[in-house]
Amino acid sequence: MAGSGELKLLGAWTSPFVIRVRVVLNLKSLPYEYVEENLASKSALLLGSNPVRKSVPVLLHGGRPVNESQVIVQYIDEVWSGADRPSVLPSDSYERAVARFWAAYVDDKVGPAWLAILFLSKTEEERAEGVERAVAALETLEGAFADCTKGKPFFGVDGIGFVDVVLGGYLGWFTAIDKLIGRRLIDPARTPLLAAWEQRFRTAEAAKGVVPNDADKLLAFRETLLGAPLDIFQNRVTL
Amino acid sequence: MAGSGELKLLGAWTSPFVIRVRVVLNLKSLPYEYVEENLASKSALLLGSNPVRKSVPVLLHGGRPVNESQVIVQYIDEVWSGADRPSVLPSDSYERAVARFWAAYVDDKVGPAWLAILFLSKTEEERAEGVERAVAALETLEGAFADCTKGKPFFGVDGIGFVDVVLGGYLGWFTAIDKLIGRRLIDPARTPLLAAWEQRFRTAEAAKGVVPNDADKLLAFRETLLGAPLDIFQNRVTL
Repeated sequence: MAGSGELKLLGAWTSPFVIRVRVVLNLKSLPYEYVEENLASKSALLLGSNPVRKSVPVLLHGGRPVNESQVIVQYIDEVWSGADRPSVLPSDSYERAVARFWAAYVDDKVGPAWLAILFLSKTEEERAEGVERAVAALETLEGAFADCTKGKPFFGVDGIGFVDVVLGGYLGWFTAIDKLIGRRLIDPARTPLLAAWEQRFRTAEAAKGVVPNDADKLLAFRETLLGAPLDIFQNRVTL
Repeated sequence: MAGSGELKLLGAWTSPFVIRVRVVLNLKSLPYEYVEENLASKSALLLGSNPVRKSVPVLLHGGRPVNESQVIVQYIDEVWSGADRPSVLPSDSYERAVARFWAAYVDDKVGPAWLAILFLSKTEEERAEGVERAVAALETLEGAFADCTKGKPFFGVDGIGFVDVVLGGYLGWFTAIDKLIGRRLIDPARTPLLAAWEQRFRTAEAAKGVVPNDADKLLAFRETLLGAPLDIFQNRVTL
């Protein structure tokens, strides 16, 4: 396929869906031009490249747009494969199916809970219910981590993989949620494997400078979005 | 990979998510044992094979479970590839990304509207709103069909492909919805390309006997589900 010199990513620094793509581009050592979108006034390039969703991330590869974060991650992994690039998806078909299952689970369960806690809940009760849903999903993922990794540091076969980047994209917002609710979503007492995983992911070279860690800055960003239409990231509640 | 003699599919004849898997198994000429699940009393095999979702479809390959319909379809396509089997996903990475984008769109937009119309709406207004959402999504897909196929009979590169089976799984229920609302969801006047596609898909060899066409039987089945918990198929509102 084409070289890596023609990659442009339209993103937003807070978007879990953009963050996962940036981590993968870093993992693959792919240089790219990053364009920060103003979500309140999206660029003509964004609207023209993703007319159906009108959302970030959009990866432009030689000018051709690829949309939907999980689709983009798989695209990057397929195009820049080979021994010189770490694989995000496992090479074994069954292991790949397992990774896809858990990635879908994250966006189906963690994603809506994240939206509910930060953007959709109108009462303390609704927020608490969102927190409970997030915690329940994370407890299920704790079990998945134990089953899938058997002591390895990440969900991926040889390091950070598909489930890692999909879940890891939310970690910045988890910091903000922790501050908002006064306790940790990834609680070391309830989900110790994920808590240790979180530290490894945040400090991995590919995640540095990409996963936000300033809760106040995120919460201030949230304030600017609360009055905005809710197509802010992927215009939907799941994947 | 392993042969095809050890395939078992746990399903429900009405599930859009099961139907798409069956069409793909037929496309690939793969023999399999089909087990109809009673959704009101799921088998121990189903609950043990898909403990996270507890939903159909589950594909057991040599005893190992693969879950989530879009994941299963990709798994089948990857394991049974080669010149003697039609490909469901395109071989080109960019075309594959486009197919994955539209497949996700179908389950993200058509799926929730389908659930709303048949199972979640409590008033005529809510049902009408679900119908409008479904029609809007189908009009977007009409445009996608024109863009993607350029005159070919299906979304797939060489025949029925990923987007075809994902959307085609809903066609049985569309018949039931048409009867319920007194007009056609895939209206030949508004979405002529999809209307012609629907006829081709329904009469394709791989879909015969798999896509239900008896609206009354489907609506009777629906009656049995209306009082049941809503984890009937995939326990969620999207993919």
